Amino acid sequence: MPAYAYPLLIKQLLLTPLANATEQEIVYRDKSRYDYRTLRERIGRLGSSLGVMPGQTVAVMDWDSHRYLECFFAIPMLGAVLQTVNVRLSPEQIVYTLNHARADVLLVHEDFLPLLESFSAQLETVQRFVLLSDAEFPDCPAPFATDYETLLAGGDPDHEFPDFDENTRATTFYTTGTTGHPKGVYFSHRQLVLHTLAAAAAFGTAPVQGRFGRSDVYMPITPMFHVHAWGFPYIATMLGVKQVYPGRYQPDVLLQLIRHEGVTFSHCVPTLLHMLLSAAQTAEVTLHGWKVVIGGSALPKGLAQAALDLGADVYAGYGLSETCPILSLGLLEPGEAEDEDAALSRRIRAGRAIPLVDMRVVDDTVAELPHDGVSTGEVVVRAPWLTQGYLHDEAASATLWEGGYLHTGDIGNRDATGMLNVTDRLKDVIKCSGEWLSSLELESLISEHPAVSEVAVIGVPDEKWGERPRAMVVLKDGYEADAHALREPVNRRVDEGRLPRYARLMEIHFVAALPRTSVGKLDKKVMRQHAG
Amino acid sequence: MPAYAYPLLIKQLLLTPLANATEQEIVYRDKSRYDYRTLRERIGRLGSSLGVMPGQTVAVMDWDSHRYLECFFAIPMLGAVLQTVNVRLSPEQIVYTLNHARADVLLVHEDFLPLLESFSAQLETVQRFVLLSDAEFPDCPAPFATDYETLLAGGDPDHEFPDFDENTRATTFYTTGTTGHPKGVYFSHRQLVLHTLAAAAAFGTAPVQGRFGRSDVYMPITPMFHVHAWGFPYIATMLGVKQVYPGRYQPDVLLQLIRHEGVTFSHCVPTLLHMLLSAAQTAEVTLHGWKVVIGGSALPKGLAQAALDLGADVYAGYGLSETCPILSLGLLEPGEAEDEDAALSRRIRAGRAIPLVDMRVVDDTVAELPHDGVSTGEVVVRAPWLTQGYLHDEAASATLWEGGYLHTGDIGNRDATGMLNVTDRLKDVIKCSGEWLSSLELESLISEHPAVSEVAVIGVPDEKWGERPRAMVVLKDGYEADAHALREPVNRRVDEGRLPRYARLMEIHFVAALPRTSVGKLDKKVMRQHAG
Repeated sequence: MPAYAYPLLIKQLLLTPLANATEQEIVYRDKSRYDYRTLRERIGRLGSSLGVMPGQTVAVMDWDSHRYLECFFAIPMLGAVLQTVNVRLSPEQIVYTLNHARADVLLVHEDFLPLLESFSAQLETVQRFVLLSDAEFPDCPAPFATDYETLLAGGDPDHEFPDFDENTRATTFYTTGTTGHPKGVYFSHRQLVLHTLAAAAAFGTAPVQGRFGRSDVYMPITPMFHVHAWGFPYIATMLGVKQVYPGRYQPDVLLQLIRHEGVTFSHCVPTLLHMLLSAAQTAEVTLHGWKVVIGGSALPKGLAQAALDLGADVYAGYGLSETCPILSLGLLEPGEAEDEDAALSRRIRAGRAIPLVDMRVVDDTVAELPHDGVSTGEVVVRAPWLTQGYLHDEAASATLWEGGYLHTGDIGNRDATGMLNVTDRLKDVIKCSGEWLSSLELESLISEHPAVSEVAVIGVPDEKWGERPRAMVVLKDGYEADAHALREPVNRRVDEGRLPRYARLMEIHFVAALPRTSVGKLDKKVMRQHAG
Repeated sequence: MPAYAYPLLIKQLLLTPLANATEQEIVYRDKSRYDYRTLRERIGRLGSSLGVMPGQTVAVMDWDSHRYLECFFAIPMLGAVLQTVNVRLSPEQIVYTLNHARADVLLVHEDFLPLLESFSAQLETVQRFVLLSDAEFPDCPAPFATDYETLLAGGDPDHEFPDFDENTRATTFYTTGTTGHPKGVYFSHRQLVLHTLAAAAAFGTAPVQGRFGRSDVYMPITPMFHVHAWGFPYIATMLGVKQVYPGRYQPDVLLQLIRHEGVTFSHCVPTLLHMLLSAAQTAEVTLHGWKVVIGGSALPKGLAQAALDLGADVYAGYGLSETCPILSLGLLEPGEAEDEDAALSRRIRAGRAIPLVDMRVVDDTVAELPHDGVSTGEVVVRAPWLTQGYLHDEAASATLWEGGYLHTGDIGNRDATGMLNVTDRLKDVIKCSGEWLSSLELESLISEHPAVSEVAVIGVPDEKWGERPRAMVVLKDGYEADAHALREPVNRRVDEGRLPRYARLMEIHFVAALPRTSVGKLDKKVMRQHAG
């Protein structure tokens, strides 16, 4: 049979930008700027000079950069596995992930040399080290064989990458749970290509706002080591749009790049949006024309309103490390944009499933609950881009995929328009006298108070009720508020019958800061330990 | 391994509209109107009552209807093959295609009963006939076992469709070449899902105009039997948009549907656009807010300008029956829309490849030619949705896929922005003294004259030059023009050095009408025969 069967491979995402958008730019801070033709040449140079075999693993420790983008393509295109290392983990966790994934080659940015030194003696499989630097680095220190630019200079810009099975593993990275070691998830070429296509279709066909199209300028503000920066570097490259990589996140640099490079589309966690809005307020600039998708944690209503007030088109997305990650988007439907307050409530939701995602809210027997906006259960999914398990961990894989659906560990409900409302993490839910209280809903209500900078609500043990809610509140500098004022919107909602009456049991604790995980999420596990 | 592997199946295109757009409408002329929930129920009813086994073939002869949309889903979702029958073929050709595809079941609209009667005795494999009708049809005439609505009434609206191999054949239909029998092409579930995703991503992310998004209203004006109406019924359904099916094409009905149902997006061949524009001019209505993609034949500049003048956002697309069909789109890039005349020249081009399409213009050795807008050769492609051959025809399949690329039989060139300019069919090109003359370019120049209704340029044998161009021109009613005036823009372009001087050899013949193929394309084979 002479027909070409066309396996779905990451290299094919480059086909149309290299024909249609050769002059489009890729920018790295104020340090580097080149076109897609050069991107392809540097991918060829990297692939031809890295010296890895199919099936080997190449780990990368870098800030968001053009180099990382090159690695997103060149390493999988060799049939090797790209391991994106979470540089915010502890040294013990990082060395665990590198040994567990059996990394053969390690690319390290010079900023992480002290970190590397702290664990390099414990590395069991790494054979070769490549130094990443924004500066010239003529004399590479041990253990580095070479630096990245020297490596590329010796490579072949026209290197041809082979075809192979589309189910070949392309990427791996580790997600930190609440207990035990980090767990490895992994994605194939086929999965990443399908995620790219479906996400491009979903963002592109957005009916009212929040669209990502071929005239946008993209900049990540979720790290590239974190679930492929939500897959956006692949989407942006396939579409041939201008891309801006900001290096280490510094709010003033991010703001400058948004303004000077004309960035129109980003994604980040609520904490970073919070920092950016503060920086914008300080600099007295607006964010008109900037679209930003928020994920990783729930988007508080107050934060979303603050972003809208500055002109940003903000909305939530939903997904996990295990899901590549995009599952659903809080885009508005025609008609939903008219009532501003109703629209705000839609924007902060987990959103509607993107094409091909089979999303269900289920009861304990994995039977689907009605789409009535009330019936609450665990969110389970099928999609063509979900990790097929945890690396070298059969027991955890079986739990993840119990009953043939991936269990997100989130609970929520869905309404008749398909809108998913995630009300809690299964493990964070507060069980008060046998009823579920949504910590996220309580947080969102408290966050609307103008004095509140951040809030986390956890369940603390209570002899009478089992658990009762406790709000840990950080106030804004120079603002004051008492517990009574913060409790007021919650009590009102109880009066209206829209919250269980146990919500009245909520305690308010004022704190100076909230504990966070390595990726910047609120660490409720630590909060519960301190409360316990 | 408990993980769900997720084969790419047509049924999965229904997942998100059934969760997110249950109340959206599907309209059939002025005869029927229902929501997506009902669509799913009717698909279930059809699938459960049709009584076909996986691997069997169900052929359909209908105008564009909600029934056809139901067949697009239910039949492949059973693991059976949907054969879309070209009702414009001759009876001999239709019976050939039904026997060749070994159709087991045949669904026939009552309008085609005389046609069916003319060939039914020659059908070799059809076991069961189902009657399609817009009216009640209580007493089914022989050979019909039942009518469609009676069948559905006895079916199960909740019928569950099984999973199976994504490479299972989903559709087949026949394309008429210039010689011999019609040839069968075929597409798998995987191919149709990938075509749907990539096309949705391409149309959705359109940077300036011509976008298809989730707030559009879709109506086909390329028949559903012709390359799945360009795959749009699948795209529109996946996106959950309002769909309007117009039945048999009647320009006044089409216009009414566009206006009364708020249709914003269609696709058709130039001939139909021509008819619609005439009807709009007669009815003194404009087409503002209506986007229309033109394919099947080249889009003449004069016709495109006439559409723009009436307010339509018109542009070309490119593809073949063999390619599912979409390969490229003549969407404008930012900056290209500013100069109106330049923009018009871009809109009528075959366009830029959509994601994952590996499109090349090659020389006789299948080596790629430079993207210089001049170097002309055959267009060859790879994509994840191309027919893997011709049904039961190994020799033709091998020719189609010679060298591992699908040969389109079109010649053209490509510029530095990726824009493909198809200059001719390989078989229609005019070879004048060893040089290639583009019949399409000559046609486009002549079509700009206000008196010209239609034009076809063919090569006719010439003793001295090998071939010389002959233009067959149909003038508009009430208009006059002489050969000198029509020849003028061609001669001017020769003077400017933008056309080979052999273009001056063009003869002009005025004719009353032009011969067409069964799908409404100009039939140059017949013209050459008459000229020969």
